[in-house]
Parts: sequence; structure tokens; C-alpha cells
Amino acid sequence: MFDSKSDIMSYKIKNLKFVFEPKSVALIGASSTHSKLGNVILKNLVEGGFEGKIYPVNPKYTSIMNMRCYSSVLDIKDKVDCAIISIPAIAVPKSLEECGKKGVKGVIVLSGGFGESGNKILEEEVKNIANKYSIALIGPNCLGVFNPYKKLDSIFFPVYKLERPKQGSFSFITQSGGVGSCVIDLAAHFGVGLSKFISYGNAAVVDESDLLEFLESDKKTKQILLYIEGVKDGKKLLSTLTRVNRKKPVIVLKAGKGQKASKAAFSHTGNIAGNYLAYDGAFKQSKVVVADSLEELFDFVKIFHQTLPKGDKIGVITNGGGIGVLAVDEIEKEKLILSDFSEETSKKLREFLPSYATVSNPLDIIADANPSIYEKSLELMLSDKNIDCIIIIVLFQAPSLDDRLLNILIKASDDRRKPIAVVAVGGDYTIMQRKTLDSYGVPTYRSPSDAVKAMKKLIDYAKYSGCRECINPKKIKPEFKLTE
Amino acid sequence: MFDSKSDIMSYKIKNLKFVFEPKSVALIGASSTHSKLGNVILKNLVEGGFEGKIYPVNPKYTSIMNMRCYSSVLDIKDKVDCAIISIPAIAVPKSLEECGKKGVKGVIVLSGGFGESGNKILEEEVKNIANKYSIALIGPNCLGVFNPYKKLDSIFFPVYKLERPKQGSFSFITQSGGVGSCVIDLAAHFGVGLSKFISYGNAAVVDESDLLEFLESDKKTKQILLYIEGVKDGKKLLSTLTRVNRKKPVIVLKAGKGQKASKAAFSHTGNIAGNYLAYDGAFKQSKVVVADSLEELFDFVKIFHQTLPKGDKIGVITNGGGIGVLAVDEIEKEKLILSDFSEETSKKLREFLPSYATVSNPLDIIADANPSIYEKSLELMLSDKNIDCIIIIVLFQAPSLDDRLLNILIKASDDRRKPIAVVAVGGDYTIMQRKTLDSYGVPTYRSPSDAVKAMKKLIDYAKYSGCRECINPKKIKPEFKLTE
Repeated sequence: MFDSKSDIMSYKIKNLKFVFEPKSVALIGASSTHSKLGNVILKNLVEGGFEGKIYPVNPKYTSIMNMRCYSSVLDIKDKVDCAIISIPAIAVPKSLEECGKKGVKGVIVLSGGFGESGNKILEEEVKNIANKYSIALIGPNCLGVFNPYKKLDSIFFPVYKLERPKQGSFSFITQSGGVGSCVIDLAAHFGVGLSKFISYGNAAVVDESDLLEFLESDKKTKQILLYIEGVKDGKKLLSTLTRVNRKKPVIVLKAGKGQKASKAAFSHTGNIAGNYLAYDGAFKQSKVVVADSLEELFDFVKIFHQTLPKGDKIGVITNGGGIGVLAVDEIEKEKLILSDFSEETSKKLREFLPSYATVSNPLDIIADANPSIYEKSLELMLSDKNIDCIIIIVLFQAPSLDDRLLNILIKASDDRRKPIAVVAVGGDYTIMQRKTLDSYGVPTYRSPSDAVKAMKKLIDYAKYSGCRECINPKKIKPEFKLTE
Repeated sequence: MFDSKSDIMSYKIKNLKFVFEPKSVALIGASSTHSKLGNVILKNLVEGGFEGKIYPVNPKYTSIMNMRCYSSVLDIKDKVDCAIISIPAIAVPKSLEECGKKGVKGVIVLSGGFGESGNKILEEEVKNIANKYSIALIGPNCLGVFNPYKKLDSIFFPVYKLERPKQGSFSFITQSGGVGSCVIDLAAHFGVGLSKFISYGNAAVVDESDLLEFLESDKKTKQILLYIEGVKDGKKLLSTLTRVNRKKPVIVLKAGKGQKASKAAFSHTGNIAGNYLAYDGAFKQSKVVVADSLEELFDFVKIFHQTLPKGDKIGVITNGGGIGVLAVDEIEKEKLILSDFSEETSKKLREFLPSYATVSNPLDIIADANPSIYEKSLELMLSDKNIDCIIIIVLFQAPSLDDRLLNILIKASDDRRKPIAVVAVGGDYTIMQRKTLDSYGVPTYRSPSDAVKAMKKLIDYAKYSGCRECINPKKIKPEFKLTE
């Protein structure tokens, strides 16, 4: 009835739930030695509060951290949903075979030493065992999975060095564990919540397209980040991206663009990075959001927590004239519109702004503006039909500002009339204010150019992407409109 | 004998020493009201430990903060080197006239409400009084000066909101107080030391070229940042930039490039931003380092604390493969050379790197590399003639790394064989490590693209700028080679 290929497809997607939401996890390669990965992961699972059962597996021990340690998964009596494997590559096939016999349907292989170091045959063996037992296998050569909703965590970096984000709405599919972990760390730092993190490494079994398909119907995921180096099945990726991006914005960073970079990518995850032009074409066709650097991935996903704009007319408000000018430079560079305020807005602004302030866009409310000036001006800009999006520049350093401004900005974002982005540059005090805003879903940026670039992506998505009904939020609430 | 114009020129430069290194300061507009600027500045001068005498001036008070308050500068018996004026614009000419009569040779006018709000006549009046008394006048409409060597500080932002940098080697001339203060805050945050900060606003008397000329012979200044919107005398700027940049690298950000931005700049500091093409031409001719955004100003000045490279061949070392690939993408984009290691380097690397590590450039020493692996690899790259500059990527999150790595990186920077740049992306823990490195003169970046862009600027400066003798550091120690 079914051909074997689509059978494999369907079991993979179906069984991914055992990877992301297991009721029980076996850690194969658990260790009691402080510096070993098998110890860091066990600690992270226990101390992170994983909600299911944990079974350490290692024939060397009978107990670790006061938990019974098993010689093999086959010795565990209860059902095991997921196995995390962190043992030398050469020993992986035997352990995986045992997982198969035990009926484990989700497996994460962290170990390196497969295709990326020339051991293609070993990787093929792993793939065949997974297919034989219908195992949804992530890896090998990866960091695995972090799901804050279930406290499942196979990232082998200690929590004091790599913060874990709270529960939230974006998911991140990454071929590189390092790139992934950096973005995760940033998200935690700024208080931006995560749905799922998946570092999938060599993609021997489950690949980026499978993961996209899984997240497509994952209710907790509203935005998707994708970092890829080399992809085995480009056609599959193109069709999946096109479909998923219509429902949820997909932000993509492709590494290994040039010749040397492509070579470096091959020795990293054993995948051929290929011609970037082909990828570029696929991204254009599928209308996904393209990031050009690591930091853009994080910068862009934050703006997609906002409502979609109805057009490309930007309003700018600032208490620092120079930074306003820099914002306009970037707006003109990105070919967005800096429109005049309506006559009504201008009239009302003149009523409360000091006489020496120039009432025009960008609106420079001068360094001595207090939170109330921001509030009144913002309300006028949110109501003005000549403005679709607002860039709010705040020099938090100004003596006349205080924490009241944070509530005003959070309110302006929460009422979802227009997307906003806050620009704030500075040291400890400013970063503290930025963290508060980001953790409440107000995207903040370290410079006007970063903010305007992000806003441009949101505008383009609203204009050109599949999710056309999102353009007028009155008609239908777009799926990614809600952050919680 | 001299024409009056060059006379004015010479008094301005000469008397700027009273602005930057005054033995006594009068604060005209001192206030005892907590939220007033005249109070914040007085507090900053006193608590910041200004090394000279402080004279509060305000007819409303007889004493402020337990200090005698004077009705006018004319009432002060001792010599006054510098006056900081923070009173309504309309009252400035009278106070300035009194400063002239008192023999004050350096004046900083913080007050706004001059040319930028259409009061050209008032600004002209200020200019004439300054010329009449040979006063080197900074402003109006500015933040003034911060000199950490003398603890002179006219920035009216409270220290708990805007950190002040330690003593160091870069100076910043900025038309916009806001843009300037953001960069100052960043420098303090990362522990990068400052020589002089000058926010010069409307440039009624002392302009950007005068300040460049002053810093040209300022021994504590090794690198210069310049932020401009509109310049009155373009020819003077071009010739000054060309001359100064040969001695000390000048990094320039020009705002107000497009039509709308230019208009916004005019209402900010009352200067015509002009055609960017003309500026762009002048920058190319003078071979200055051009920054395209606020964050690039700070990113670039840090790399100029390093030694100049002998060529454009880049070596990359990383404990995260993906970030290495992203670095190579950027190296290829910037048309720099990712050269092969020498045979000797490759041979020696193979002796201690694990068998599964690929010995090539970028050198991926894998996530479990310890500090000693970094040390040995770096030493080989520093000795390898095929490498001119090194991008060092560190996932500080890796369990195998510890603080020993910081010393290794600082040593690699200190021995000045080759310029290095460190890339580290992440949250609190990573930022803490970055701050340590930056405060020891090792430039760190939040992404490979930021680091490679900065390195490109250093390479271009070494190649094309006036300071040709710097290209071979053995011949002559370049002036900006030393950070302290």
C-alpha cells in the first residue's frame, strides 16, 4: 500500500514525540566523573528537573548520583521512550541495536566520529539500525535537544556557562551545536523564551526537513530558526520550507557559502555545503527570512514576536538626535518609507512638546524628555494612519527617564496595533533595561541599523510571504501573533 | 604679519588645553535641585574626583553641596581655566562675556537652543564673544568633555546610568552627545580605556578639525573616533584628516547620508549634512577608516589596539566547527586570504591534536579542547609565516575550558607578533570572559562577521594608509602600537 520511503518518513515524524516529550530517558554513557559529558548531562537532567524517569546506563557502575545504573537498556524493566547516547562512536551500533530491541523509539546520538571524520560506513550502519527498528534518531555528532516545557536537556554544556532559556515560542533547528548553543545562551540572557532546541549534526536519519515538518504542527512553536551547512535532499527542503513558512515564519542562516567555507563545513558535519546560489534561489522561492549572520538569527526572531505591519511606513521617536539620524540613514538604505505624521498628530504633538523640539519624523523629543512625553507621543504614533511600524530609540542614560518608561513600552507592544522595536545602546544599566523589555516580548536592539534591518524583514514577510491573511490582523489572528 | 583667520586657528588649538586639562573649573548654572543638569554635573565633578578647584556659579544660591556658590565668575578671586555653562540659551552671551573679562580661556556651552532651533543670530553672538576674548569654546548644544586622566567630566548623565571608562588610549570626537555617550558607556562596560571624549555639538567656535589637530599631538591619544553629521569647512577637514590619519588611525562615522536623514541632522545640530558622495570621496582620499554604524565605531577602535599585520592572510582557530565555517564565509566575503598552514605547523599540530580533528585552516580543535590545546596551536600559528592575523573563536561554554585560557589569549595579544581578534558569543558567563579580555587590550567580538570586518579595516590601514612604516613593526614602533 505504502512505499517504504514514505513509511520511513511517517515513522520518523511520528516518533519524534518520543525525542521531545519522553516520559522516560536512558542516558547511555552516564558517568560519575565530574568533567565527562555523561556526567554533565545527567546533572543537567536531574538538577534541571526533567519531568520523566531517568535511567543512567553504563556497565562500569552500579550507581551514579544515588541512582541505580544499568549495564544495558535491556536491563531496564519499564518502558524507555528516549535514549541519549554519549559513548565512543565505535560502540554506538551495539547500543542502538539494544535500544531497538528494547522498543526505544527516540534516540539522540551525541557522539562524534562518524561521517564528519570519514567514517561513512559507521554512519550508514547507524542509519540502517534506526530504520530497522523505526527509531527517530537525532545526530550523530550533535548537542541534541532542549525542551524547556519538559525540562529535557541533552546539551552537554554546564548551566553556569550556558544559560537555558525559559519556556517560549521560538524553536531552533541547527546543524551546528556550537552555533545553536550560542543563540540559546543569548536567548536566555535576554529572557526570550524557547519552545524547542534541536542540534541535529550529521542528520543520518532525521534531517532538517523532518524537524521542520514536526514543528509545523507543534502548537508551542510560533517562529522557527534554521541553521544549515549542507543538506542532502534540497528538493525536500524547498517544498517543506515553502509550506511551513506560510504558517510560521522560518528564519534561515546558511553557512559554507564560498569554496573554502564549504570545505570547512564538510569536515564539520560531513555534509556537502553545495552551491550557495542554489540555496539562495530556494530561499527566495520559499520566501523565508534570510539571516546573514549569527546575530541576525536572534535579532530577527525577536521582531517576529510582534504583530505584522500593514505597510512599510516607519515612524521614529528618539531622545537622542544623532541616533535618530542614524536610524533614518538605515531606513533610507533599506528603502523603507519615513512618512510625515498626519496633520492631527503634528498638531497634538505641538501641544505638549517644548517649543524648541522640531515636530517631524524622526521625532526628536530631546534628552530631557520624561516617560510621559514618550507615552503621549507613542500613543499618537500608534493611532496615526501614516505610520505602520515604530522604531523607538531610548537613551536610558538620560537623567529624566525612569522605570515607568518600561511599562509604557511593554504596553505599546502588548496592544498589538503596530510592531515596535526599541533601540538602546550602552553598558550595564542600559542592558538591564533591555533585558526587562526583551523578557516581556518587546524586541530591543543595540543599534538603529540592527533594529531597522529586523523591521525590514518583518515588513517583507507581511508583504511577500504565504501568510497573506496576516497582513490585515483584523480579519484573522495570525498564528505567530501571540507570543505566549 | 598673520592674517586674523590663522590667528584664530592658533589660539583655539592653544587654548584647548584649558578645556581638557584645567586646574580650575567654574560651573555656571550649578544647581542644588536633584534632577537639574547643573546638579548632576556638579555631583559628577565632585564625586568623580576632579583634580582641580571647582567653583559653582549661580546667583540664586550662596552655597551648594557645602561649597560656596558665586553670583558670577567675576566674583571668583582665583584664576579660572575653564567654565562649563549650563543655563538657558538666551542668558549665555552675558555669562560668556563675563568669562572673557575674567580671562577664562576654555569654555564648554552645554545649553541647546541656538542654530539647531533656528537661533543663528544668538549662535553668531556667542562666536563673536569667544573670538574677541580668544576663548576655545566647545558647543553649544553638546555634552562637552570627559578626560579620565584629570577626572574632568561635563557629561550630564548620572554615573549609575552611564558608566565612565578608565584611562586609556582612544579619543572620541562626536557631534552628537547621544551617539558619543553610548560608545563611552560601551567602552566602560567592556573595560576599554579612553583618553579624551569631546561632544562638540553645533561647533560654533571649535570644530571637528580643530579637535583633530589638538589630538594629533596629544600624547595619550593613540586612536581617534570621529562622528560627524554636517561640517562647515570640508576642505579643512579633508586636509586635517589626511595628515592626522598618517600618524594615528582615524575611524569615521558620517550620519545624515540620505535626503531625509540630512534634514533630520540639520534640526539636530544646525549643520547641513551635505552630499554624502563628497564625504565618501574625502574619506577615500584621506584613507581614514570608515565605519557604517554606531557599533562599528567601537568594534573597529578595539582592533586598532593591536599590532599592524604584515599582510592579509588569516588563520582561524575554533572549538566550534559551525562558527568557524561562518568566519570563513566572512573572510571570503571580505576577500581576505585563508591560507594553508606551513608544512611544519601542520606536522606539529598533528603531534598533539586528537586523530579525529582535521588539521587545516580553519583549525577546528573540537568542543572538548582544553586551554593547553589552544596555547600550543596558537603558538604555532603565531610563528607560521603563512599567517598574518588570527581570528580566535572560543565557545567559553565548553566544559573543558577554564580561566587559564584568558591568560593565554592575553599573552598572545601582548607579544605583538600578529594582531588577534577573539570571537565569543553567549550570555552572562561569556560576556564576563569577554570583558576581562577587552580590559586587557584583547579585542573581542560577538560574532565572526564583526571580528572579520574589524580585521579587514586593520589590514587596509596597514596596507594603504599613510603610516607605511608601521607595516613592518621591526623597523619602527608605530605610535598606536602601544595601548598604555
